[in-house]
Amino acid sequence: MIDHPSFSVEPWALRETELNLDVLAQSGSVFALANGHIGLRGNLDEGEPNGLPGSYLNGLYETRPLPYAETGYGYPEAGQVVANVTNGTIIRLLVDDEPFDVRFGELKNHERTLDFRAGVLRRRVEWRSPAGRAVHITSVRMVSFVRAVAAVLYEIEPLERPARLVLQSELVANEPLPYWSDDPRTAARVKFLLRAEQHSGRDTRVVLVHSTEGSGLRMAAGMDHIVEGPPGTKTGQAESDSDLGRVTITAELEPGQKLRLVKFLAYGWSSQRSTAALRDQVAAALAEARYTGWEGLLAGQRGYLDDFWERADVELEGDAELQQAVRFALFHTLQAGARGERRAIAAKGLTGPGYNGHAFWDTETFVLPVLTYTVPDAARDALRWRHATLGLARDRAKQLGLEGAAFPWRTIAGEECSSYWPAGTAAFHVNADIAHALARYQAAAADDAFEREAGLELLVETARLWRSLGHHDSQGRFRIDGVTGPDEYSAIADNNVYTNLMAQHNLSSAADAAERQPERAGELGVDPEEAAAWRDAAKAIFIPYDEKLGVHPQAEAFAEHQVWDFTNTTPEQYPLLLHFPYFDLYRKQVLKQADLVLALHLRGDAFSQEEKARDFAYYETLTVRDSSLSACTQAVIAAEVGHLELAYDYFGEAALIDLDNLEHNTRDGLHIA
Amino acid sequence: MIDHPSFSVEPWALRETELNLDVLAQSGSVFALANGHIGLRGNLDEGEPNGLPGSYLNGLYETRPLPYAETGYGYPEAGQVVANVTNGTIIRLLVDDEPFDVRFGELKNHERTLDFRAGVLRRRVEWRSPAGRAVHITSVRMVSFVRAVAAVLYEIEPLERPARLVLQSELVANEPLPYWSDDPRTAARVKFLLRAEQHSGRDTRVVLVHSTEGSGLRMAAGMDHIVEGPPGTKTGQAESDSDLGRVTITAELEPGQKLRLVKFLAYGWSSQRSTAALRDQVAAALAEARYTGWEGLLAGQRGYLDDFWERADVELEGDAELQQAVRFALFHTLQAGARGERRAIAAKGLTGPGYNGHAFWDTETFVLPVLTYTVPDAARDALRWRHATLGLARDRAKQLGLEGAAFPWRTIAGEECSSYWPAGTAAFHVNADIAHALARYQAAAADDAFEREAGLELLVETARLWRSLGHHDSQGRFRIDGVTGPDEYSAIADNNVYTNLMAQHNLSSAADAAERQPERAGELGVDPEEAAAWRDAAKAIFIPYDEKLGVHPQAEAFAEHQVWDFTNTTPEQYPLLLHFPYFDLYRKQVLKQADLVLALHLRGDAFSQEEKARDFAYYETLTVRDSSLSACTQAVIAAEVGHLELAYDYFGEAALIDLDNLEHNTRDGLHIA
Repeated sequence: MIDHPSFSVEPWALRETELNLDVLAQSGSVFALANGHIGLRGNLDEGEPNGLPGSYLNGLYETRPLPYAETGYGYPEAGQVVANVTNGTIIRLLVDDEPFDVRFGELKNHERTLDFRAGVLRRRVEWRSPAGRAVHITSVRMVSFVRAVAAVLYEIEPLERPARLVLQSELVANEPLPYWSDDPRTAARVKFLLRAEQHSGRDTRVVLVHSTEGSGLRMAAGMDHIVEGPPGTKTGQAESDSDLGRVTITAELEPGQKLRLVKFLAYGWSSQRSTAALRDQVAAALAEARYTGWEGLLAGQRGYLDDFWERADVELEGDAELQQAVRFALFHTLQAGARGERRAIAAKGLTGPGYNGHAFWDTETFVLPVLTYTVPDAARDALRWRHATLGLARDRAKQLGLEGAAFPWRTIAGEECSSYWPAGTAAFHVNADIAHALARYQAAAADDAFEREAGLELLVETARLWRSLGHHDSQGRFRIDGVTGPDEYSAIADNNVYTNLMAQHNLSSAADAAERQPERAGELGVDPEEAAAWRDAAKAIFIPYDEKLGVHPQAEAFAEHQVWDFTNTTPEQYPLLLHFPYFDLYRKQVLKQADLVLALHLRGDAFSQEEKARDFAYYETLTVRDSSLSACTQAVIAAEVGHLELAYDYFGEAALIDLDNLEHNTRDGLHIA
Repeated sequence: MIDHPSFSVEPWALRETELNLDVLAQSGSVFALANGHIGLRGNLDEGEPNGLPGSYLNGLYETRPLPYAETGYGYPEAGQVVANVTNGTIIRLLVDDEPFDVRFGELKNHERTLDFRAGVLRRRVEWRSPAGRAVHITSVRMVSFVRAVAAVLYEIEPLERPARLVLQSELVANEPLPYWSDDPRTAARVKFLLRAEQHSGRDTRVVLVHSTEGSGLRMAAGMDHIVEGPPGTKTGQAESDSDLGRVTITAELEPGQKLRLVKFLAYGWSSQRSTAALRDQVAAALAEARYTGWEGLLAGQRGYLDDFWERADVELEGDAELQQAVRFALFHTLQAGARGERRAIAAKGLTGPGYNGHAFWDTETFVLPVLTYTVPDAARDALRWRHATLGLARDRAKQLGLEGAAFPWRTIAGEECSSYWPAGTAAFHVNADIAHALARYQAAAADDAFEREAGLELLVETARLWRSLGHHDSQGRFRIDGVTGPDEYSAIADNNVYTNLMAQHNLSSAADAAERQPERAGELGVDPEEAAAWRDAAKAIFIPYDEKLGVHPQAEAFAEHQVWDFTNTTPEQYPLLLHFPYFDLYRKQVLKQADLVLALHLRGDAFSQEEKARDFAYYETLTVRDSSLSACTQAVIAAEVGHLELAYDYFGEAALIDLDNLEHNTRDGLHIA
C-alpha cells in the first residue's frame, strides 16, 4: 500500500512529500501524464531506480499468440498487448562525475506534485552527492492536451559550492522491464522488441523510428532541446543509434547560477505511413513545439484545463480528502479520453500495462458517463472508435453464428482478445452497454449528424445481435440464455436481469432511432418488419423474479444456489478469484461486483422504489467488491434507497481506489473506470 | 474412410486383402496388438511407409506444461502425454541390395489378418523388387497375454530365382512422428525426446535404457533373436547405440529355401528402479521368452483366448458383419484391459496417442461393464488403479474446496490433466461413475476382500464429495448446481438428471457398504451421522421434471432453451464442435451424446417404462452423436422402449465405429469405450 500520509491533502493537487522506493511502480501510475494519445508514466527523470517504466501510444500494440492446451472453435488465436514505446523522459545528471541517483548520497528533500489545474507534474529535489556536492533540481513535465507533444523543463542549481554538471537527455527504445506477477489481472508476460528502422541525430534533435514485428505498426519518437546556462555551457552534437538517442550538455556552475533545459518530445505512429513520413511528422511536431516554446505550451495547457474545470468540477463540502480524490479522478479520466481521436479508452487509460492495455465495457459504462457531460467530443470520439471497428464486430458475430455485430470483450484494435470465453465472449452485454452509451450521448448532445453517420448503425447492428441471441419460448417470453452478466463471479447463466434489461433498451433504442432516421435506416436494410421484431422482443423480454424472496435473481435460478460461505472465508482469501476455482464461484451466490444493482442504476426506470430497496439489500450481503467496478454503483443505489452512510463509505472507496491502492494493483496502471 | 470392401467379412478374424497407403494410420490402429501393458500399433514390419508409428507402455508418459493465456485458480499446470517408446517391431529387408518397400517395385499380394482366436497379426506379402527379384514374406506378430513379452516370426522365401538377403532387426528410440491436426480430440502437439541412459548389445540381444525428462520415468526395451536359415546364413554381432539397436542377418537362398527369424521383445519401466535393474529385468524376460520359444508363446496365447472366448463370446445370427465387429470390439477391449495391473485403461487403449493416452470416465462406464462379466480380475485391477490414485483425488478435492475425493476428468497417472474446466473439472459425474462400476463389480463378483481393502474407501470418499458439492435448498431438495453432465454440448448446468441420479446411487451405495463393513467404515471415520446425511441427501435429491412436456429435462431449464437449428446445419458442419462455439452449443437444445438417455440405462430403476419411452423420444431428435459414447446407449434404450429397427441401426453404428472409421479419427487410436 502507498503510505497515505506521504500524500498531503489539498484541493487542486496531489503532492507527495517523501520518496518511497518500495512503491515506485504505484506512484508511477498515480503521477502518469497523458492526453489520450501519448501516456508517460510518472517515473523519475533520471530513469533509475524505477518500479515499472512505461511510455504508451494509444493503439500501438504488439500481437502475441494466445495459447490453449485444448483448442476450441472460435477461440481468438492472437492477443494484443500495449507496447512500451521509446522512453523520452530520461534526463541523466552527473554532478562532478557522480551520477545523480536517489539511492546514493543524501536525499535532503524530494517532492512531487501533480497539478490538476496546470496539468503538469512538478518535482523538486535537494540532493547531496556521496562526495558531498549539493544541488537543487526541479523538473516540470507535461503531456500537452493542446498539441501532440510532451515536454520537460529541467533546472539544476548547485548549492554551497561550484559544480561541474553533465546532462544526458535521452531517447531509449527497448528498455528492460521487470518481471510480472501471476495475478491474471496484470499484463501478460510477453517479451517482444521493437525493430529499429531508422535513427537520425542533428544539432539537438534525435528521431528514432521503430516498428512492431507481429502487428506491423511503425512509430517514430523524437526529441529536441533548448539549453540555457552560464557562459561556457556546451551542448554536444546529438548522437543516435538504433535504440538510443542522446544529447549531452556540460556546464560549470557557481551557486546561484542555473542550468536550464527544455526538452520537447513528439511521437507518431501508423499502420500505413512510411518511415520517412513518420520521421518528418515527428520533426515537424518538434519544430512546432520549439516555436510555441515552453511558456506557450504551459499557457495552452492551463487554458485547456481552465475550460475543463469550469464545466467539469465537482465541489464537495466538508471532506477535503474526497474533494481531492474526485478531482484526481476527473483529471485522470480527462487524460485517458481527451485526445483519443477514435481510438479506444483502455481500462487503465495510458497509465500502465495492466490488462494488456485493453479496453472493455468499462469504457462505455463507467468512463463515457463522465466524458459525455464534461468533454462530449471525447465521448463521441470513443463511440466513433467502436463504429470504426464495426466490420470486425460483424465478422465476429458471423463466426459465432449470430446476426449483427458482436463487439469484443477486450481489445485494443477491435479484434476479440479474450481467451477465456465464459468471462469474455459470453459477456454479450458489452453490446448493449455501447448502445446505452450512445443513447446517453444522444440525449446529452442531440447530435443528429453523429446519429446518422455512426450511431444508428451501431444501434441497428447490436439490436440484430440481440434478436438472434435470444428466442421466444413457448410462453412467448423472449429469453437470452447462457450468457454472462457484469458480475465476474457468475457465468453462462440464463436470463441475466442486467443483460436482458440492457438488451431491451438496445432493441427499443434501435427501433426508435430507425424511426427518427428513416432514410439511413433504409440504407441499413431495416424494414418495418425488423423494427417490429425488435419491439416485440423488447416488450416480451423475460425478467425473472423470485416471488418467495421478493427480489430479482441476478439470473434465473440464481437465488436457489447455495450462498457463499462468508463465515469461513478469511480476509487473506480475498480477492476470491485467487483462492477459489471459477467452478465454485459461479455456482454459488456471491458477487464480485454489482450486477443486478447496476441494472437498478442504469435501468432504474424498470424498478419500483420498493423493489430497488429490497434488491439492493439482498445483493448487499453477497457482493464482495473484488472488482473496482462495484463500489461506485453501490454508492449510487445506496444513496437512492436511503442508506446515506453506506453510500458515503462506498463513495470513499470508489474515489480512493488508486490513491490508497485498495486493489493492490495500482502499479500496473490506474482504474480509470 | 477406410475402404470397407478391403476388409473381408469372416467370423473370427479381420482380414485386409489389399494395402491402402492412404489409410495406413487408421489400419495401424485397427491392427494394433496389446495386452494392457504393452501396445504396438499395426505398422508394417519394415517401418516405412508409415501413417503413425507407435509403441506404448501403459503408464509411461511425459509431462508437458499446460499453457493458459489467462490463468485461473486451480487450473492444472502440467499435462501428461503418453510416450511413444522404443519401437521394436522394425525388421528391414534387403533383397539383392534393394530395400523391401511396398512403394517401390511391384506388390503382387498383400494381406493382413488380425486373428481373434490366435491373438496374432499375420501378414503375407508377395513382392517383386524394382530389379525383378520376387520374394514371399510372411510375418506373425504377437503381444502375449500370458508373458510380459511381444514376439515376431518373420520368414522370407525367394521365388523363381536365388536371392541374397539382408535382414536388419532393430530397436529404434525417438523415431520421428508426423505432425498433428487441429482437432482437439487428437493428441497434443508435444515434442519430446527420451533421454538415452544406457545401451548394450551382445550376441543377438540388444537392450536400450531411456528415461523421460519431465515425468522422471525410466524404461528399458530389449530384443533377442533366433535365426534359422540355409547353411551360410550369418548373424552378425549385435550393434547398439543411444537410440538404435541392430542385429544383421545375411543369407543366400535358393527358391524353396527359407530364412526364418524369431524376434522377442521385452519392455520394463519404473519410476523408481535403477538403470541396471531395468536392464536386467528386460534381459531376464528375453531369456524366459527364448526358453518358452515361439511355439510356446503361440500356444499360451491361444489357450488364454480359448478361455476368454468361452466366457465372453457373443454369437449373433443373421448378420455376419456385425458378428465380426462385435468380436473385434471384444478382442480390443480385452487387449486394452487384460494385463493393466492397476494402471489406467485409456480411452484409446494402447492403440494410439489420441486424447494423449488419457483415461476418462469411459473406463468405468463403458469398458468395465464388459470386463466385469468377461475378465473380472481386469475390472478389479482397473478399480484398484483408481484406489491407488485416491491420495491425488483427495488433494484435488481439497484444492477445489470440497470434501472427500475428486477424481480427474482425464489423466494417465492420477493428476487432473484437463485444461478446460467447464468440460473437465466440472464433470464431477466421473466420481459417481466410479462408484457405479464398483457396485457393478461387487454385484457380479461379491468380492468382500476387495470391498474392505479398496471399494468401501472409494465409495466413502466419493459420497463425501457429493455431500459437499450439493446443498439442501429452502424446500429441502438436495441440489447439485453448476456441474457438467455426460453430454459435452452442455456445461455448467444445475441439477443434471444423470449426475443427480448417479450421485444418489453413490450416496446410498456408500451408506449401504458402510453398514456391510462397519469396522472398516469406522476406520475411515464414517459415523452414523455421516451415513444418515448421505441417505438424506440421496432421498432428497432433486430430479427436475417438465410437466408441460412430460419429460425430464437433461438439466434444470434445459427444455426451455432454444432447439438447435438442425434444418440449417449442413452435413459438413458435423461434428458441431469443429464449426460452432461452445458458447452456442451449451445454450441450446442439442446433445453430442446420450446424457439423460444414459441415465435411463444406468439408473433404469428410477424411471417408469412410459417415462423412458417419452424421454427417449424427446432426446432422440436432439442427439447428433458427435461422440462415440452415444450410439451404444441409444441402442440399448431404443431396444428397451421397443424401437427395434432403430436399436439395430445404433448397434451397427456403435459396433462399426472403428472398422468404418465413422469418427474420422481412428488414426489416433481405437474407440475402446
